[in-house]
Parts: sequence; structure tokens; C-alpha cells
Amino acid sequence: MSEFRELWDQLAPIGRDPGSGGYLRYAWEPAELACREWFRAQADARDMPVEEDGNGNLVAWRGAGEGPAVLTGSHFDSVPHGGAYDGPLGIVSAFLALDQLGPRKKIGVAAFAEEEGARFGVPCLGSRLLSGALAPERATALTDRSGLTLRDALGREPAGRTDLLTRVGCFVELHIEQGRALGEAAVGVGSAIWPHGRWRFDFTGEGNHAGTTRMSDRRDPMLTYAYTVLAANKEARLCGAHATVGRVAVEPNATNAVPTLVRGWLDARAADASTLDAMVEAIHKRAVERATRDGTAVTLTEESVTPEVAFDGGLVARLARVLDAPVLPTGAGHDAGVLSNHVPTAMLFVRNPTGVSHSPAEHATDADCAAGVEALARVLDELT
Amino acid sequence: MSEFRELWDQLAPIGRDPGSGGYLRYAWEPAELACREWFRAQADARDMPVEEDGNGNLVAWRGAGEGPAVLTGSHFDSVPHGGAYDGPLGIVSAFLALDQLGPRKKIGVAAFAEEEGARFGVPCLGSRLLSGALAPERATALTDRSGLTLRDALGREPAGRTDLLTRVGCFVELHIEQGRALGEAAVGVGSAIWPHGRWRFDFTGEGNHAGTTRMSDRRDPMLTYAYTVLAANKEARLCGAHATVGRVAVEPNATNAVPTLVRGWLDARAADASTLDAMVEAIHKRAVERATRDGTAVTLTEESVTPEVAFDGGLVARLARVLDAPVLPTGAGHDAGVLSNHVPTAMLFVRNPTGVSHSPAEHATDADCAAGVEALARVLDELT
Repeated sequence: MSEFRELWDQLAPIGRDPGSGGYLRYAWEPAELACREWFRAQADARDMPVEEDGNGNLVAWRGAGEGPAVLTGSHFDSVPHGGAYDGPLGIVSAFLALDQLGPRKKIGVAAFAEEEGARFGVPCLGSRLLSGALAPERATALTDRSGLTLRDALGREPAGRTDLLTRVGCFVELHIEQGRALGEAAVGVGSAIWPHGRWRFDFTGEGNHAGTTRMSDRRDPMLTYAYTVLAANKEARLCGAHATVGRVAVEPNATNAVPTLVRGWLDARAADASTLDAMVEAIHKRAVERATRDGTAVTLTEESVTPEVAFDGGLVARLARVLDAPVLPTGAGHDAGVLSNHVPTAMLFVRNPTGVSHSPAEHATDADCAAGVEALARVLDELT
Repeated sequence: MSEFRELWDQLAPIGRDPGSGGYLRYAWEPAELACREWFRAQADARDMPVEEDGNGNLVAWRGAGEGPAVLTGSHFDSVPHGGAYDGPLGIVSAFLALDQLGPRKKIGVAAFAEEEGARFGVPCLGSRLLSGALAPERATALTDRSGLTLRDALGREPAGRTDLLTRVGCFVELHIEQGRALGEAAVGVGSAIWPHGRWRFDFTGEGNHAGTTRMSDRRDPMLTYAYTVLAANKEARLCGAHATVGRVAVEPNATNAVPTLVRGWLDARAADASTLDAMVEAIHKRAVERATRDGTAVTLTEESVTPEVAFDGGLVARLARVLDAPVLPTGAGHDAGVLSNHVPTAMLFVRNPTGVSHSPAEHATDADCAAGVEALARVLDELT
């Protein structure tokens, strides 16, 4: 357990906001770059050469000889004020698992770029580029909130698909669980990722003076937004799915002005695509009905949709047997979901007692993290 | 009419956002400073010395001799993406009205600082400091969104109350109407300002992962916020008052995170204080009820409340008689409301065909603006 704590404490201060206690590690910004420096130092200490794939992803390689490698790892970047574990746990655990295995095992440890999409708006940006799921010419002009492009951040055009994955036999990502499904088990094996996506609602009305405009003369898009937030919550409960409006942008966003525009981003997930589609359609329908009442207009833009990912059935069964661990799906997207379209892929989840994630309160015990390292070492040993 | 258009066109390009067509003129920022340069040039052209009162307010003086002066004028600063007329019309009209009067009339033309409160959050900041309604030691540390203080913006500690108002016999502010109450008349006389205020609602919950947290495990403050927005609208309609939530701030404001905190600012106004108080109390009560249901918490902070202002009855009647103009109250705060506690004060309103204000669509016809100049000239002539 002390090996875990020692390595973990090296990363802990990097990018932590003293106010919230959460992390501000955005891809290619100073805190995340400091994590990458730490990664290179860890690789050096283990005589592992580091490959940068031209898309911002790093892989530290070990072992030689014929045959494909086993890839493991995760990401450093966080959501705004996110937790410590989401991402970094998979990288720290990978190095510690390697320390338990013989040096001849052919293994790569990956740190993927921009998994959360918190800077450029596209989750799993690094693994999508690497695998060819996103064309580099589409990605290069993505902008962050300050107007910088991905090209600016990378310092070059992204390389897109390389031969990296052709050298990989399978991928296993260890990750903190983000719900409370594990219960009595410290570690579980991921079976699937729910289909999920992001939709942007633009509610437009008529900007006006908050003090002087009669209520009956208003066309206030904040009302339509508010109604839609409540409708999304209701629809998700009705169909056993997840719907969240966690991000909003208002113009002009002034206390004494009826807004001209309110933008709300809907994050929606469900166990299957038809439930997801029906839920988003129902939310949209209710938004449009309310807009008629408010004299506003609503447009819906699908920003990204990721279909259901079923991890490799044989690999999942094998890991569950080796570890004697429960098998569970997740509602969260991961680089593993992207890579599973290209190489046999599975995930390991480490127990999260409260289920809280994407928050400073995200937590796993040191004992469970150490159990995660043990499990990953056994899996890597089994697969190499 | 051409005199108006000529002078108006000089100001029109300053601080206009090419995208929205609205104005971004924040106190002491470049666009507003450029307006002040224009003001000094106009004063110079009329041989009017300009007094800066140590609080960022400018007054151009004309005439000499015993006895108090008549003060007129308004402000340059705008709400974000505000209209062209709110504020500047009163200053442009003042200079044009002066051109119709003999040089011996003792008149001051004022440009007040930070009337909208869009930069430092306190509306009528300049006139409050000038009149002693706000202590300079309280104002100096006010910060804008980038963390700069009022002291930084002014380049000095604000002076607070000076002898300026002791030299003023009465104040008349000309302003674009911000509703549609004028109807057939181009110009009206303001009788009162509704009591109004700003309240901040802080909704706190538990930050969490949008994909993995079960709906029943959530404590999502966005739901409580949304419900409160709709409740505010309903309560205002029930009591014939105005309630608006036009500004919101979310933490972390990420698409895939249940927020930890949602802040909403309520702008509320009513014809009398008891209606206003009852409405805010009713909205608060409904917010608290909903918070119980959502597992969230709500705190209410009164940021500023301005009691009803009744302008000087004698002065209002005199102006209405001189102009044969209708008399009307307004829901909007003005520097005139602040100054009316210190000197006899009245307002003139220029017709606004759509009633739209605090928006790029705010508009008055050139003919009505010229009628406003005529009316102001007659009023200044009458009062001097």
C-alpha cells in the first residue's frame, strides 16, 4: 500500500485548486504538462522509451521481441475542479503493476490527451485522433474558450492515425468507478459503455430591460431554458436513463437584462440507443412546446454521440475469471471505448465508496487502489 | 433634426460590437474613456470648463454669477451588448439643448460614471459616491470580473461627497423610455421610480459525474435554480410586478458534471415596497421548498435595494405644464433617483416605439430625439 501512496503523492499537488480542492488539469496547459513531465521521469526511471504519437498521446514502452504488446494507461486531464483519481489512477497503477512483472513482458503505458474534452469540447480527443475516429483536419481548428486552436496547443497539425495500434494486441484501462455499483468488491471488470452524447440547446428570445419590460411583453429564453432543465430531469427518471444540464452560457448575462440567448448543454446517457434517442426527442419536444408559450425559439444541435460500446466479450470473461471479479457496465465514456473499435479492449474499475466523481470529493481508499494495482498486474501477466 | 443626427453619429461607432450591434461600454474601459474624450471635446467647443469630481463623474459648466445652476446629463456606460440610447441620449441632448439657449444660463452637463453597474456591480456608482449615498471606503475595493478594484480603475481612492451638489439647484435627466407607456406622446415627464433591487440566490448541491450518477443519488442545484427561475416569473405575474433572472454562474459549468453551485441573480421591481418584499419572499419560499426536494441548499443575499423614488412633485408638475406632456413612473433605476434625495429632480422620457431596452434593438426615431432636445431646452430655459 505504501508504494501506491508514495507515487500518488507525487502527482497530488499538481493542478490542485486550493479553494475547491479540485483539479484544473486541462490538456496542454501547465498543470497537465507537469503531469507529462512526471510521466517521462517515471518512464526514464524504468528505462522505458517514450513515444509521442503526434496527437499529444504519450506511450512508454517496455519489453522487446516479436508479437504485439499489451497497452494499458489512462489520462491526466480533468474536468474543471474534478477529482484526483479520474484518469491519473490508471497511469499510476500501470507503472506500479509493471514493477511487479518481469522486464521481458511487452507492455506500453499510455497517457492519452484531452479525454474529458474540457478544453476543446471533444472528449477522448487524443484516442480518437490516434485511432482514426476523428480526422486531424477536423480536429486541428477546434478552439478552446480563449480562442486558441488545437494546432496552437499541440504546436503542430495533429498527426492523426499512426501505426501505433498495429503494435498493440489488446488494451486494458484501469479507472476509478464513477458510481456505487461495485458494492463489496474492490475491483470489477467493465463490460460496456452506455451510449451517450452531448446536445446543445440554443434558446433565443428578445433582449430587454429587466426593470421596465412588462412580463406580458417579454420573450425570455431563460424561462424556456429553466423549463427544459426540469423536463430533462423528469424524462430521465421516467426511462431509467441519465440526463444532466451542467453547463450554461447566457448573453448578455447581466442582472438587469432579459437575455437574448441562453445556451444549455444536455448530457444524456441510457442503457441502449433507442432509449437514449427517445429521451432526447421527448426533452426536445417539451422544450419546443414551452418555447411557443414563451415566444422564444429553440434549436437543438447534436454535438457528439457515442454509440454503445460492448467490450471484447472473450477478454472481459477472461479477466473476470482471472480476478474472480464482478462484471459491470458504465455510463461514462473512456478512451477504452474509442480503442475498443480497433483492438480487443477491457476495463478494470476500482471501488468508489460514495460514487462521487468529477468532483473534489471523488475518492478511493489506498487499500482499494493497491488492490487495483494487484489486479492490473495479474491481468497484464495473464495477457503477455 | 440634422443637428441631432450629426452629433449622434460621432458617438455611434464607439464601443459597438460588430457581431451583436450592441454596445460594450464599461466604465473606465477604452470605449467609455473614448466617450469621455468626446465629452471633453464638446465642452471645449462650447467654452465649458470640465470638472472631474474625484469619483469619475464629469460636469461641463456654463454661465456664471450668483445662484445655483441647473444640472442635466446622464451616463455613457452600457450593459453588455446594450443599446445606443440608454445614457448617451441624455448627454447628447444636453449639449444640443444648450446650443439653443443664451450663454448666460447657468447650466452643468453631467456624465455620471458606472450607472449600469455592469463593471463593479453597483448601479449609479458615480452618483452614489458624489451624493454621499455610498461611502468611498466601501466603494474603493469593489472588484470587476477580472479582479481589478474601483481604485485601480479610477487611479485613486474615490473622493466621495464633494461640494458639487451644493452648487446645483435642480437636476433634470433626459432618458430614452424603456417601456411602451408613452404611446402618442414623443416626450413625457417622469414622476417616480419603482422600488427595486438585486438578490443573489446561491444554490449548492453535490458535484458529480453526469454519466454515472443515478438520478436518485443526485443533489443537483441546477434543478433548484431552474424551478426558482420559473417561480420568479409566476410570482411577478401574480402581483403585477417585474422579476427577472438574467444572470447565472455555474461551477464547474462542465457538460459532463452535475454542478456543485449555481448562482442566479434576481432583479425584482414593483410599484411599492410591500409588493416587492412580498414577491421576493414568495420566490424565496418556493426556492427553499424545492431545495428540500432536490437535496440542495439555497441562500439568499440582498445585494442592493433601492426604495421607491418619488421625484419632486412641484418640479414634475411644472415640467408637465410647460411641455404639456404626460407624466409616468418607471421601473428602471437612474442617477436621477440617487440625486433626488439631495436636490429637486425630475426626468424627461423620449418615446421608444418597441419599448425594447438594454438590447441592440433599443431605438428612438430621430424626430422623437429632436423633440426631446426641444423639450429639454424649454425646461432648462424655464428653470434658469
